[in-house]
Amino acid sequence: MNTFPHVPPGFRFHPTDEELVDYYLRRKVTSRQIEIDVIKDVDLYKIEPWDLQEICRIGTEEQNEWYFFSHKDKKYPTGTRTNRATAAGFWKATGRDKAIYSKHDLIGMRKTLVFYKGRAPNGQKSDWIMHEYRLETDENGTPQASLCPYSSLIFC
Amino acid sequence: MNTFPHVPPGFRFHPTDEELVDYYLRRKVTSRQIEIDVIKDVDLYKIEPWDLQEICRIGTEEQNEWYFFSHKDKKYPTGTRTNRATAAGFWKATGRDKAIYSKHDLIGMRKTLVFYKGRAPNGQKSDWIMHEYRLETDENGTPQASLCPYSSLIFC
Repeated sequence: MNTFPHVPPGFRFHPTDEELVDYYLRRKVTSRQIEIDVIKDVDLYKIEPWDLQEICRIGTEEQNEWYFFSHKDKKYPTGTRTNRATAAGFWKATGRDKAIYSKHDLIGMRKTLVFYKGRAPNGQKSDWIMHEYRLETDENGTPQASLCPYSSLIFC
Repeated sequence: MNTFPHVPPGFRFHPTDEELVDYYLRRKVTSRQIEIDVIKDVDLYKIEPWDLQEICRIGTEEQNEWYFFSHKDKKYPTGTRTNRATAAGFWKATGRDKAIYSKHDLIGMRKTLVFYKGRAPNGQKSDWIMHEYRLETDENGTPQASLCPYSSLIFC
């Protein structure tokens, strides 16, 4: 009944922002061991959001959010702007980044992005939402993102 | 960040009916080892629903459902009727029992009960709902129940 042999029955992966940043992302960035291979590595800009469902599946249950690690891809080799395009569309930031705290310490930030089909500045807004996490202490760290349909945004 | 030392960060106890019956309840009834002490033993009829929150707490997070094992208390020593009264009120079954399957096999049943304050046949209906599980193969087995406020019934 369980995907991971050392997780007891009935336990499911529902991480908090703090756990994503302070455990999973921090360990990934510093190349420390992560206890469980629950977050896959993907190249987000070579993959369409609807293809992530299969790649980032956890077990056999229905999911409405998916977790992955992906390196940021720079638009130009010498620049700081990020290339967020895929073959079918692009990711566009929306709203303000959210601060993530551990007790009273700022440990990271969460950026929200929406997927548009087509090419900027045009493109058709979709229901796909991504949360991209970064360590506050390491701006160049590997982002960790969760992707989910807009309809279930409140769960993300 | 985690209550149980051998559960990886980000995993929370959100069991399915099948897991509750086929792993936790079955092992309890047959006195086999349960991997993790996540479901407490209580005497449900000596305790009020609002006191279960503290006893059955898992970690520090807010919960709206609580899990416990409790023996059924017979109303009369020789009878089969169950005494579901506490000091402050009583539990009353509602609706039909739900069958729980593992693949295509019937493994257990789930009874839903509502807590009424006061004494039967009067009493004031409350928002407390309990799901009492039993093994289909062992009618006299220890029931395992999850208790939650009515408002979050859909999560139970």
